Amino acid sequence: MTVCYEDFTPGEIVSYGARTITREEITAFATLYDPQPMHLDEAATANTMLGGLAASGWHTICILMRLNVDHMLKDSASMGAPGVKEVKWLKPVRPGDTLSVRRTTLEARLSQSRPDMGFVGFLFELLNQKGEVVMTQENVMMIGRRGTGDAHVS
Amino acid sequence: MTVCYEDFTPGEIVSYGARTITREEITAFATLYDPQPMHLDEAATANTMLGGLAASGWHTICILMRLNVDHMLKDSASMGAPGVKEVKWLKPVRPGDTLSVRRTTLEARLSQSRPDMGFVGFLFELLNQKGEVVMTQENVMMIGRRGTGDAHVS
Repeated sequence: MTVCYEDFTPGEIVSYGARTITREEITAFATLYDPQPMHLDEAATANTMLGGLAASGWHTICILMRLNVDHMLKDSASMGAPGVKEVKWLKPVRPGDTLSVRRTTLEARLSQSRPDMGFVGFLFELLNQKGEVVMTQENVMMIGRRGTGDAHVS
Repeated sequence: MTVCYEDFTPGEIVSYGARTITREEITAFATLYDPQPMHLDEAATANTMLGGLAASGWHTICILMRLNVDHMLKDSASMGAPGVKEVKWLKPVRPGDTLSVRRTTLEARLSQSRPDMGFVGFLFELLNQKGEVVMTQENVMMIGRRGTGDAHVS
């Protein structure tokens, strides 16, 4: 069944996903979007703040999105998002790290202007295999209400 | 010369970059990180809010980062960023759109704990070829001070 606005309850916490990130993925992403030495070259990073090759923070954001699509959005009435409220990068993501998501629903409110949808606010925490939070992200998504007849809410 | 903390003045506005985004890039990115129909399949998007194929908002964020690396960060004393303050997606990015950056320096303050760096806050506006702002992003970067002797400040 399609996940709709009504399925999100403020205070609920759910966990999902497991994706192991490889050195090849880190450097391939960085080559396209963030070609700085700390994301491309182990030797260049030994004496930097990161202390070794680490994924671009933007890559980490993209991995969170992919986990959210696979585990939350692909069978949902999601109608996108107006933006991102805040992102914090807390720890480096290294080759071989396995990342998972802990999602807290912060708020749910109906749209004033569109009766077929509501806004749901989330805190996403991305954890590594040691249970350390490597990144947090807050945003608000537009999600269709159940039974409003739109094609996307089946 | 390496761009350092001292080179950023609150209130300054500069523009740079021009990158044309192709349909192939949009779908390649979406396949990896945001495999939702509106970023993959023209036919599936005709009746959606986006009204046609559009880049993932996360892809648009990554393109901004690449423009920032090429025009601002690659010859700088940048030491990364603790996160992102806010992102707003304002208009769809379509195949063939050419994107450029207008950057406003919002603030510059020295670190209390690290004498070799400061924090510089920016508003980045990403514009399309019609001059429309398709996305805004605010964040704060850590940037090395000139003459502090670190290897990255040459």
